Formats: sequence, structure tokens, C-alpha cells
Amino acid sequence: MGKQAYTAAEIAGRIGLGLRGDGAVRIEGVASLGTAQPHQLSFLANPRFKAQLQESRAGVVILQPEEAESFSGTALLATDPYVAYARAAALFEVREATAPGIHPTAVVDPAAEVDPGAHVGPHSVIGPRTVIGPGAVIGPGCVVGEDCEIGPETELVARVTLVRRVRMGARCVVHPGAVIGADGFGLAMEKGQWIKVPQLGGVRIGDDCEIGANTTIDRGAIDDTVLEDNVRLDNLIQIAHNVHVGAHTAMAGCVGVAGSTRIGRYCMLAGQVGVAGHLDICDKVTVMAKSMVSHSITEPGEYASGIPAMPARDWRRNAVRIRQLDTLARRVAANEKGKE
Amino acid sequence: MGKQAYTAAEIAGRIGLGLRGDGAVRIEGVASLGTAQPHQLSFLANPRFKAQLQESRAGVVILQPEEAESFSGTALLATDPYVAYARAAALFEVREATAPGIHPTAVVDPAAEVDPGAHVGPHSVIGPRTVIGPGAVIGPGCVVGEDCEIGPETELVARVTLVRRVRMGARCVVHPGAVIGADGFGLAMEKGQWIKVPQLGGVRIGDDCEIGANTTIDRGAIDDTVLEDNVRLDNLIQIAHNVHVGAHTAMAGCVGVAGSTRIGRYCMLAGQVGVAGHLDICDKVTVMAKSMVSHSITEPGEYASGIPAMPARDWRRNAVRIRQLDTLARRVAANEKGKE
Amino acid sequence: MGKQAYTAAEIAGRIGLGLRGDGAVRIEGVASLGTAQPHQLSFLANPRFKAQLQESRAGVVILQPEEAESFSGTALLATDPYVAYARAAALFEVREATAPGIHPTAVVDPAAEVDPGAHVGPHSVIGPRTVIGPGAVIGPGCVVGEDCEIGPETELVARVTLVRRVRMGARCVVHPGAVIGADGFGLAMEKGQWIKVPQLGGVRIGDDCEIGANTTIDRGAIDDTVLEDNVRLDNLIQIAHNVHVGAHTAMAGCVGVAGSTRIGRYCMLAGQVGVAGHLDICDKVTVMAKSMVSHSITEPGEYASGIPAMPARDWRRNAVRIRQLDTLARRVAANEKGKE
Repeated sequence: MGKQAYTAAEIAGRIGLGLRGDGAVRIEGVASLGTAQPHQLSFLANPRFKAQLQESRAGVVILQPEEAESFSGTALLATDPYVAYARAAALFEVREATAPGIHPTAVVDPAAEVDPGAHVGPHSVIGPRTVIGPGAVIGPGCVVGEDCEIGPETELVARVTLVRRVRMGARCVVHPGAVIGADGFGLAMEKGQWIKVPQLGGVRIGDDCEIGANTTIDRGAIDDTVLEDNVRLDNLIQIAHNVHVGAHTAMAGCVGVAGSTRIGRYCMLAGQVGVAGHLDICDKVTVMAKSMVSHSITEPGEYASGIPAMPARDWRRNAVRIRQLDTLARRVAANEKGKE
Repeated sequence: MGKQAYTAAEIAGRIGLGLRGDGAVRIEGVASLGTAQPHQLSFLANPRFKAQLQESRAGVVILQPEEAESFSGTALLATDPYVAYARAAALFEVREATAPGIHPTAVVDPAAEVDPGAHVGPHSVIGPRTVIGPGAVIGPGCVVGEDCEIGPETELVARVTLVRRVRMGARCVVHPGAVIGADGFGLAMEKGQWIKVPQLGGVRIGDDCEIGANTTIDRGAIDDTVLEDNVRLDNLIQIAHNVHVGAHTAMAGCVGVAGSTRIGRYCMLAGQVGVAGHLDICDKVTVMAKSMVSHSITEPGEYASGIPAMPARDWRRNAVRIRQLDTLARRVAANEKGKE
Repeated sequence: MGKQAYTAAEIAGRIGLGLRGDGAVRIEGVASLGTAQPHQLSFLANPRFKAQLQESRAGVVILQPEEAESFSGTALLATDPYVAYARAAALFEVREATAPGIHPTAVVDPAAEVDPGAHVGPHSVIGPRTVIGPGAVIGPGCVVGEDCEIGPETELVARVTLVRRVRMGARCVVHPGAVIGADGFGLAMEKGQWIKVPQLGGVRIGDDCEIGANTTIDRGAIDDTVLEDNVRLDNLIQIAHNVHVGAHTAMAGCVGVAGSTRIGRYCMLAGQVGVAGHLDICDKVTVMAKSMVSHSITEPGEYASGIPAMPARDWRRNAVRIRQLDTLARRVAANEKGKE
């Protein structure tokens, strides 16, 4: 695979950054400050790594103008070095081109509409009345059921399943193993036996969303499950039926959101967070790792309930006390009263 | 896709409900009370939504006889409106018919037995000595290994894997990405190196079970892992080897059950619950969200240990105290003693 | 399927165990002490099951020499009966032979190198510049992207995805649905919009590793995500980008490890444990079920923070007190002061 190479000046020009130092330095890839070689680009975004800057052998470093003062190497100046790094790194991301066209092993329903500019990979299956937009990439081994819509330039990386009635906007990426539009978990108990409540809704996903590997998003029971634009979901997340996720909200791995909950815009849920059903979470709420959200949240800000691990011997002693906490509180109250 | 349509009287007749009002109303689909249009059916099951009843534009509403008194629209009368709704909604669930037969791209071992009334979808792979019953549907992209048995009318929706020795009863539904019958996590440490303990059992699943998307059920180490009839599992659940789940038990998303635990009948595990291994949970136990079950449970009822999230600043102060709880309890005891 | 059968003496010879009793007993399979029949082998590893020994109808039992004293049946003597059982059970594990060669439905890029001794199953897809070693088994429905390396005798059971730049050593097993090498969850916020940070690293997995069903291991942002030799991961585990897992570490189901964390050798993480990002966990750390590791750990030993479930009524009373814990602690302090 031919390596991409750019001079520092070319990178500055392409991303629109100020340059300081030797614009002719030839860069062939990226690396972290600690391991970078003279042909590699690095960046300083986290003040924690500032100490590594002077030692770094990187050919060029993206940093804030004020950091450049004390730096003797070649620098690219950015207000937000991490954003600039993301742009620069994209220059070095060499990916196989996916030629438009339908692989001969793909099975496409005659009633499906695949844009001539779309790619459908080997062993993929496309159902009836499904529409695949221009520039869309359906990777190998995907199953897209009936009545789906895949927007322009959206990519299903590989082995993604869209069950039915899933509409995705433009420029989304869905990672392998994700399952979108499966039946919501709707059950009714009849004479001691669970029966299935038909799940007649769909899933509606906006533009610029990302869905992680093995993440599951069920379709709605009656109305749709919705992800607005630019929602970012990590791996192994469960989004139940009729959940509504506001634009620009991001969730880390292993989060679970129960049915019919509405989550606002610009929220962040850290790893293993659980959100109960039928709640309303307002915009700009951050929930810290492993917390359980059991009530609606009406104020932006940080929320938490995860307990940090400690040595098991200490923990066992404390955990016993948690079981006695109400009694303890009553004893303290009695103590106080006794003193009055 | 042609829409199904029924009059209110036809729906009443098909499900066996009392009718009140105009039986000729033509219904083309379902909707919630708040959004329903005159050609749609809705239902009132949760008293919380009672206020929406009078305002609803729904053509017909399923409700309890006593609620119908004060309702002027067309009503279908049901003791359990949610169950009746499930039956009614099924009338409007139009699904692609899956014709019997084996898709030409499927790879079926010569030693497999596929009933002529079963469907095997594109790119599915069926292993030796596996038996697929009448009316069963093996959707696209499934892999069913050797020595499996799929009962009548059971459906593997798409991209389901049954590794080996998995026997499923009738009328089950397995959602995409589920993996049933993979090796249990059996390890022995020999001279500082993990070695694998062969997993010689299988998985036995009863009738009318549902297995959610990307859920995993390992096969037994020696005996089988068992799900009795009518067990309902949501998405991303882990059932370890030799677990036994009693009939009519339901588990919500992201639950994990460790090896050799027995869970009774009619239990309900809410989202993200964890159950340790080698436990015995009796019938009719409900475990609330995110709880950790670390001991056997012998009394039916509700159990919990999840902590509701609070503002992070408050939480941090309290979390520090949890670490000091044993000390605090001792101080309280000393205080009490001091007063005697 | 023809059953394997061995005499007790043959088993003793093959695994190198002492024999006591009738070496001619014919054994056709394994069972637990309580259910074993005279043609089956069993073992006693856990003292808990000692009472079952005398009653057992097993044809032969693997046990420690000291236990054999009081046992009248045929015994195989082992210092570690569980390890010996693992070896013996392997004799009875009959698996379909996977003949070398590429299934005609597989799609192999012309620039891939598949060893003539490797097996590539039906409907698998192998990308360019990927190298499959001798004796490796790529089961049905797998997708192996570009620039991957699969070591000798490594098996991808079925429907496994390796996205790109994944190098695996020898004798690994990857269970169905696992996704290795998907994009890490790297995001930068630019003018109110998340943009993607290219994930230019890969994944490097040592020898003798096992990756559970539907587990996800993201590839590194710049450097690689690493699993050293003999790492064992159960199902539904999330390993984020740039995590480094030391040799012989084992993780149970539903564990999540956030980005850039280093976990030492011989660690054990129990089910549903969460580990925050950018931490350093030393060797020989055991974390108990459902705990949250939010700080680096520098001392070997057991750590915990999971709260055992209790009756919900009791729990609700205690959970309220957790919210008031800081206040309670202050009141206790005031009480103490008041008494001085």
C-alpha cells in the first residue's frame, strides 16, 4: 500500500493552520508525542503531555499558538489542536476504495432501488422497497430488510443488520454487528403466558451519526425510535423502542437506555450507564460511568452514582453497613434527640 | 405494500371484544392516543394516559368497560386492553411472506434435514445432522452448526448463529446477531497458563421463547444450558453455561447471568442486572434495574441494589462517605455507648 | 456421529495419570458426579461435591490421591483434578473436521495469502494483503478485512469480523459475532458538531487467546490495542482503543474497559466490571463483579464495589440514606464534638 506523504507546509495549507518552522519537513504518518519519529506528525491537546513536547522527535507538532513560543521544532498552530489533528490524521488514512456497483454474490430484491453510485458488497442481502442512496457503502455480509432507506455516503461497514423500516440520513457510519430495527421488547401477559406486542414503528436516524459495533437499536412499538443528527454511539449499547436521542449526544460503551425515554441534545453518557424507561433527560446532561438514571433530569450538568472500587476487605465491611444505613441514620437521630 | 383495513366491528369479531359505538368505522392502522387519526385504532391500558382519552381523534379505542362509560367515541371493550391491543395490532402487521424452500445461495450440509415447509434464506449455512422443522424460517446470513434442532414455526430473523447442539422448540423468535451454543467460559490454570475446558453440553430452549438481538447463550460444560418455555430475553443479554431459566421468565437488556445459576419461573430481571454463578433464584422474583444478585433468593418479591444518580457534586461527597461507612458506624456505636 | 470410547487405562495413559481400580472400564463420555452413569467419567475438583462421590455411579472418577483412599470405585489420580478433567474431556470432544481449502462461496481478494493448510468457510470474505496461516480455520460467514494476519491454528468460529489491521497469533479461538478492529470511539467537537478522529492503529493479539461471542475490541487511534498471550475474554466484553491487556488475564461477561487503560498480567475481572480510561492496573488484580474501577491500582489483590441486592423495600429506605450520607457523617461529627 503506497504511503501518503505531505510536507508540513502542505498539511498547513490543506487544513488552514499557521506554520512555524521548517515547512519542507516531509511527513508520512502520525504518532503520539512520546513515540513519534522525524517523519511523523504529532499533537499536543492535553496539558498532561506538555512535558513530552520538548523531548519529542516528531517532525511537526500541532499545538496552540501560546505553546509554540517555547517549542523549537516545526509547529502547526491551531486553536483546538485535537480538532486540527483529526483533520490532519484524515490525510493519512488510506482506505480501500469501494467501487460503485453490486457484488455478484449480493442478493438484491428486484423491488429494491440501489443508486448506481452505491456499493453493495459480497454476500449482502437487500430487501424489497429499500432505497440505497448515492455513494452509500453496504459492506460485506450485511442484511438490510424491507422498507429501509440509506442516505447518501452512509456506510454499513460489514455484517450490519437493518431489520425493517430503518431510515438513515447522510454520511452515517454503522460498525460491524450492529442491529438496527429489531423488534422492541413488547410483551403482554395473558393467562400466565407472555404474548408478543407487534412492533409496528420503525427507526429514524439523522445525518452524520455513528453506531458502534454490536450496538442494538430496536424499532418503535407504534411511533419510531429516533436518533437526531450527529448522535454518536459506541459499542455494545442498547437503545430500546421509542427512545428519542437528541442531536450531538454521545454515549460510551455498554450504555443501556430503556423504552420511550427522551434524551436531550449535547448529552454525554459514560460507559455502562443505565437509563430507565419513560424518562425525560434535558439537553447538556453528562452522566458519569456506571450510574443509574432512574428519574427525569431537568437541569443540565453532571450526574453520578457509581461507586469506586476499593480493596475487597474494606468494601465488604462497608457494604454490610449500607444494608444497615437506615437503622444507622435513625440511631444518629435518636442520639441527637437524647442530647437535647 | 397494500395496507390492511378492517372495520371496528370486524376487529371486535376477530379478537372477541365487545363493541360500543359505530361498528362501521374503517381502521387502517394503530397509533397512540395522543397522535391517532380517525382511521386509526388506539388503546388505554395505563391510567396515566386517561386524560388523553377525551381529546383523542382515534377512530376506535380499546379500553376497559368501566372507562367506556365516560367515552363518547367508538370503543372496543376488553378486560385487559393491552393484551387486546396486542391481538389487534397483529392484524395490521404486514410482513413479507417467506416462501418455503432453500435459497440457492444457502449452503446446506447433505446430512442436514430441512423440512420442505421450512424456509432457508440467502447465504445461510446449515450444518450436518441439523433438523429444521416445518414452517421454520432461517433468515438471511444465519449459521446453524451441527446437531441442532429447530422446532416448527421457529424463526431465526437474520444473521443468527447456533454453534452446535442447540435444540429449540416451536414458535420461538431469535433476533439478529444472537449467538446460541458458543463455548462456555471454562478455564483451568495449568502451570501459569489458562487451558480450555471442553464444553460438551448443549443448549435446550423450549417453545414460545424470544431471544433478543446480539444476546449470547453459551452451551453447557457437561449438561445443557436450559431455557424453559416462554422465556423472553431482550437484547445484549449474557447467559453463561449451565444456567437454567424457568418458564415465563423475562429479562430486559444488558442482563448478565453467570454459570450454573438456576432462575425460577415468572421471574423478571430489569436492565443491566447481574446474577452471580451457582445461585438458586426461586419463582416470581423481580430484580430491579442494575442490581447485583450475589446470593440465592428463596422468597418471591422485589429485590434491588441500584443507586439513583444525583448531581455529581453531591454524589462525590456521599461516595467518599461510603468508603468510611464502617468507621462511621463504629463512631455512632461509640457515641451511644458514651452516653449510657 | 460415532462415539469415542476409551478404557480407564487408556485415559490414564494418554493424560499421564495414576490409575487405581479396574483399568478395563469402558468410558464413552463425561458427566457430573451426580448424574454420571457407569460408562461415563467424572471428577471431583470442588470439595463441595465430595458428598456426591460415594453415591456416584460414574465408571471412573478423577480425583486427588488423598480422596482416592476412601473411594471404592475406579479412580484416576491427579494433583489438579480440574486440569486433568479438561484434558480427559478433550478426548471426548468430537468435532467436524474442517478440511483445508477455500469454500467455493468464499470471496478471497486476489491480494490475500491463504495458506494451503488453512480452511476458509462458506460465505466468508477475505480482504487484500491479509495473511491466513497454516491450520487456521475461518468459519462460515466471517469477514476479515484488509491487512490482517491470522496465526497458525487460530480459529474464527463463525460470523466473526476483523475490520482491518488485526494481527492474531497462534491457536486463538474467536467466537461468533465478535468484532475486532472496528474504529475506536474517537471524537472531537468542532463548532458544536462531533467530527471523527481517524483511528490509524490496529489490534495485536498474542498466542492462545480466546475472544467470546459478540465481544468487541476496537483498534487503536495511533498505536495498537494489545492483548498479550493467553488472554481470555468471555462474551459481550468491550475493549476500547489502545487498551493493553497483560498475558493470562481473564475477563468474565459484560466487562467494559475504556480507552488507553493498561491492565496487568494474571488479572481477573468478574462480570459487568467497568474500568475507566487511562488507568494502570498492576499484575494479579482481581476485581469482583459489577465493580467500577475509577483509579489506577498499584497493589495486587481483590477489589470490589458492587452492592448485593436486598428486598426492595429495605433497599429503598437505605438508598435514600445514601443520598444523605455526607450530612449524616457531619451530624455524627457534630454529635461527637458536642460531647467533648
